[in-house]
Amino acid sequence: MARVHNFSAGPAALPQCVLREAQDELFDYAGTGMSVLEMSHRSEAYRAIIEDAEATLRRLLDIPPSYRVLFLQGGATLQFAGIPLNLMRRRRAGYVVSGNFAKLAWREGCKYGDAEVLASSEASNFDRIPELGAVENRAASGDLDYVYICQNNTIFGTQFHTLPDCTDTPLIADVSSCFLSGPLDIERYGLLFAGAQKNAGPAGVTVVIVREDLIANGPARADICPTYLDLRVQAEKGSMYNTPNTFGIYLCGKVFRWIEQTDGLVAMAQRNRAKADLLYRTIDDSDLFQGTADPKSRSMSNVTFRTCDAETDEAFIAYARERGIEGIKGHRMAGGLRASIYNAVTMDSVGALTACMREFEASRGSRSM
Amino acid sequence: MARVHNFSAGPAALPQCVLREAQDELFDYAGTGMSVLEMSHRSEAYRAIIEDAEATLRRLLDIPPSYRVLFLQGGATLQFAGIPLNLMRRRRAGYVVSGNFAKLAWREGCKYGDAEVLASSEASNFDRIPELGAVENRAASGDLDYVYICQNNTIFGTQFHTLPDCTDTPLIADVSSCFLSGPLDIERYGLLFAGAQKNAGPAGVTVVIVREDLIANGPARADICPTYLDLRVQAEKGSMYNTPNTFGIYLCGKVFRWIEQTDGLVAMAQRNRAKADLLYRTIDDSDLFQGTADPKSRSMSNVTFRTCDAETDEAFIAYARERGIEGIKGHRMAGGLRASIYNAVTMDSVGALTACMREFEASRGSRSM
Repeated sequence: MARVHNFSAGPAALPQCVLREAQDELFDYAGTGMSVLEMSHRSEAYRAIIEDAEATLRRLLDIPPSYRVLFLQGGATLQFAGIPLNLMRRRRAGYVVSGNFAKLAWREGCKYGDAEVLASSEASNFDRIPELGAVENRAASGDLDYVYICQNNTIFGTQFHTLPDCTDTPLIADVSSCFLSGPLDIERYGLLFAGAQKNAGPAGVTVVIVREDLIANGPARADICPTYLDLRVQAEKGSMYNTPNTFGIYLCGKVFRWIEQTDGLVAMAQRNRAKADLLYRTIDDSDLFQGTADPKSRSMSNVTFRTCDAETDEAFIAYARERGIEGIKGHRMAGGLRASIYNAVTMDSVGALTACMREFEASRGSRSM
Repeated sequence: MARVHNFSAGPAALPQCVLREAQDELFDYAGTGMSVLEMSHRSEAYRAIIEDAEATLRRLLDIPPSYRVLFLQGGATLQFAGIPLNLMRRRRAGYVVSGNFAKLAWREGCKYGDAEVLASSEASNFDRIPELGAVENRAASGDLDYVYICQNNTIFGTQFHTLPDCTDTPLIADVSSCFLSGPLDIERYGLLFAGAQKNAGPAGVTVVIVREDLIANGPARADICPTYLDLRVQAEKGSMYNTPNTFGIYLCGKVFRWIEQTDGLVAMAQRNRAKADLLYRTIDDSDLFQGTADPKSRSMSNVTFRTCDAETDEAFIAYARERGIEGIKGHRMAGGLRASIYNAVTMDSVGALTACMREFEASRGSRSM
């Protein structure tokens, strides 16, 4: 069938040209006589693939040489443990709880030390990024190993539009659902990480970018840290302490190249802004649809909204599906509707969704008349 | 170019029909209008994929309902920590150190409790499976949480041909490089696990099969166990506590189907036996090549051998490469040569290798005359 308009929160739409290239190469990669899927991770051919992926990512994000880039497995979730195990040297860290994944990271942090909640928006069902004044004040005390944020909250459709100023306390950020949606100032972070399955590639790869001095002495909790999670070991071994997700990294490299070839992250951010603006404008102009996130905290990646009730939400999901629009059901924790408009979701797809929203609203209007 | 004969130890050769099917479906899976790579792991289409993969594996191995099947990330290496974190309830377990990966697992076990070496073949550079009498005696004492083995030693080319009888002590086995090479008696194990990148699929998926009662109470070390590694949680969530390696599991399912369609694991074992017999016979009949593993411990999956010296090994690797034979360099820890003859390596490929060995030996003979 024709390609659907895929608004899935992740795994999510990939660039069609990346899929076509991967398809062409699947049986025989570049005349090697084998698939990338069959290739030793120690082979010259594969080494070129992973090195190119890292080099392209470094160019895209202008990553300083003092930062290491790792391609790991286990998702952001595994790093929720890996971060305190590696970095909680004084067993005290601060967390901003702005959504479900931030909360899970905080809970995991509690296993390994004193994980303080510095700010939370749970009282308003995570509809906004909390005020950061208290976070910055607490960071200034200088006794925290790090301040942790989830920069974009996939489920609730919120995003940090400014980062907390943590002075000398390392800022750790889960950037899974905003990674590569626009430029990032890497030097603002001690460590940032992302599950690839939003903007960077397929599920099964976690990109970790970490300032080298933070891991140079090995894990804070070397006594109990699984070696797989030892960021110094993984950095020393070039993400190959054991066999990495070879095919996943290969696809990430292709996505990185695609971003570069489509004029890089500034241009990508402009396109994403235009997509988000169209969608939020459609929501704000509607009498039926309403946004669920506080306007000042709205995510550029995940647009959460709803109709007047759950039944109408369901009706809209079915109506949209008939028009080739998939993946717009809200997460069960938030309910309602959600459109994830990652890099590979085109303005054409967003246009199809907004047209569908207007048609649906009009059809209901005429029906009730 | 033409397909090479791929003897890589993993990632390794995959069945050509599996690659062709994956290629055909890569852009649009079964009329869904999207690639499996883009598909929400919560979608109906993907649920059918992962459920079929598990069901097929259960049929292949005749897995009892009292065992759970998980598809995780992080490789066998991550489970080296996961196993003691989940199962070391009395903080005492026994390890058979028969190779590098068994030794790494033992070292990881030492972080979480008293990990005893019950037997080791390190003194003879892991050229054999150690005698198991002492292992069985120690297990009979009943105070070990488990006995751990690495059933096939990829680097050194050895394999357990009988399992230790551990009476009531759960037997834990890393079966990465022999998994699905033939039938397994699942009820002999408390837990078995395998990195997929040998016989089961691509790198980035770890299959864990665990007796449910062993994980029913949660991890032994719940206080420090990363939630990702909590086998009870992963079992309750159907391997979807977080986003799994969706494409990897899809490919595993295809490989499982291929095994079933080629008459299952008994037939597979017969073919593997024939391949191994041909290769070992060629080695044993040669005046130049010699096997490195003790004949009683020889692996059916990884055949380790060498010539008279390292220089001649290199010359043979180059000679073979010119004839389309790849992946026969021995692991750096063992040196020499290794041919991994997993399920997808055909008898035709093994024939090409053995012919190449005879020609190489003959060419040297005539040269030195």
